[in-house]
Amino acid sequence: MAGCGARTERALAAVLPPVGSHPAQLHEAMRYAVLGGGKRVRPLLVHAAGESLGASAAALDCAACAVELIHSYSLVHDDLPCMDDDVLRRGRPTTHVVYGEALAMLVGDALQPLAFEAVLAAAAHGVAPAAVLAMAAELAQAAGSRGMAGGQAIDLQAVGGGLGLEALEDMHRRKTGAMLRASVRLGAGCAGLVAGTDPRWQALERYADAIGLAFQVVDDILDVEGDAASLGKTAGKDAANNKPTYVSLMGLEPARQFAARLREQAWAALLPLGPAACRLGELADLIVLRKS
Amino acid sequence: MAGCGARTERALAAVLPPVGSHPAQLHEAMRYAVLGGGKRVRPLLVHAAGESLGASAAALDCAACAVELIHSYSLVHDDLPCMDDDVLRRGRPTTHVVYGEALAMLVGDALQPLAFEAVLAAAAHGVAPAAVLAMAAELAQAAGSRGMAGGQAIDLQAVGGGLGLEALEDMHRRKTGAMLRASVRLGAGCAGLVAGTDPRWQALERYADAIGLAFQVVDDILDVEGDAASLGKTAGKDAANNKPTYVSLMGLEPARQFAARLREQAWAALLPLGPAACRLGELADLIVLRKS
Repeated sequence: MAGCGARTERALAAVLPPVGSHPAQLHEAMRYAVLGGGKRVRPLLVHAAGESLGASAAALDCAACAVELIHSYSLVHDDLPCMDDDVLRRGRPTTHVVYGEALAMLVGDALQPLAFEAVLAAAAHGVAPAAVLAMAAELAQAAGSRGMAGGQAIDLQAVGGGLGLEALEDMHRRKTGAMLRASVRLGAGCAGLVAGTDPRWQALERYADAIGLAFQVVDDILDVEGDAASLGKTAGKDAANNKPTYVSLMGLEPARQFAARLREQAWAALLPLGPAACRLGELADLIVLRKS
Repeated sequence: MAGCGARTERALAAVLPPVGSHPAQLHEAMRYAVLGGGKRVRPLLVHAAGESLGASAAALDCAACAVELIHSYSLVHDDLPCMDDDVLRRGRPTTHVVYGEALAMLVGDALQPLAFEAVLAAAAHGVAPAAVLAMAAELAQAAGSRGMAGGQAIDLQAVGGGLGLEALEDMHRRKTGAMLRASVRLGAGCAGLVAGTDPRWQALERYADAIGLAFQVVDDILDVEGDAASLGKTAGKDAANNKPTYVSLMGLEPARQFAARLREQAWAALLPLGPAACRLGELADLIVLRKS
């Protein structure tokens, strides 16, 4: 998995505009926002899902960059003063602290189309045009108003409390779940597998459901347990903002048990895929057992 | 041309998430930002370019929505306090004035993937998958760091002066020219014509160059001549911000002559396309002779 992380880092560095290319400051800020940090969970999911179905690594690089660029843009915008107003991310000053608010907004605005360029490039690596179209549409839906951006809008309105458990799940299914699911789906797309009744697709869907939810439950647990040093970002923000979390709604120990159950569900979902899906199982472990 | 405007309005209303659909406030704000105003120059260009080559109107609707959604998102973000801090747009309060800064940022963030969904939908209207892929890539490049977002980054740094005429042209070629050119190219793409040595493609490129530049020169003239009532936005902002403009660099009368020359160049470029390109010529007139 370390090899895959290094591979993604190289792929991202290559897909981002080169250092010094015009306009230089924007490009420098884009590289700052994306490179040199992050767990790269979404690229790992793309590669693991694609490898379980025999996709080519070069095509998977395209999809992996696409999901990570969308994720990176969302972090840059989320950290802005008008949103979460965070000054620390991945252990470094946030993009707007370094480059100013206006340029940070443009960094996010420019990373988003770059993500689409990246996914479209899969067509140059053996993925059929129709499958690439389906992948690009999946990326757009996952990033859009019914997916990630929609989840963030619901989150905005949740500050100060007011969401029950069901509404909290709906929010996270959009805010983080949609892009985690898209990562799995794009990996499958690189192997030519698109939405349908194929049992492998159904298995991947159930797996994505479980890890999407687990990811957020663990995030909430870490926000309570962690400290800024290991998280690389400000801890305890959610409680300070009076945002509902799985911990605040369920309690800490039940939230831990819930995460453990979701990990089992993720492994169980992978059974129809056989040993080729082992990396996906390891990723479920990584998501649930991580300490940051 | 009025018919085309109404057609685009209907297409945009249909591609935007329905009123009341979850998350309702974000979707309401997205519709506010896009519908009920604007000259729709880019959709008109898409349709005129496509019709000159015999593209289907349904496919052109997809491309027209795509470019207008990108344009609309850029206006929402451009009006934010950390950018131009504008309170009036198309004669109405700007999106962040009505819905707050955070939601306005998410409106822009969500309109961008919707634009990609829209262009990808052209595949359902008879455009070959490979041509749709080229169109989506064109949209991504035009919106990205070397196109529109890059132009805005250069613009940011130009506040307070310092750009010469050549740098000013480079900025506008990116900031407004890239999406105007993309509009023409996407229209051609709907007819299956993509980048190449086809003389019709070359003619459209020369046309797009001329009107892209003319659009900005006229904008600068109107910023000096116009008033808020007819512009629907705050007039004289550029001078107040000490931003370089064609008027400040060339003088008012030479800028007017330059715009007139570009209009002639646009018409001349269309000659190889014959009478089918008449609407494109009329659009060059509209761009140069407009009063707002």
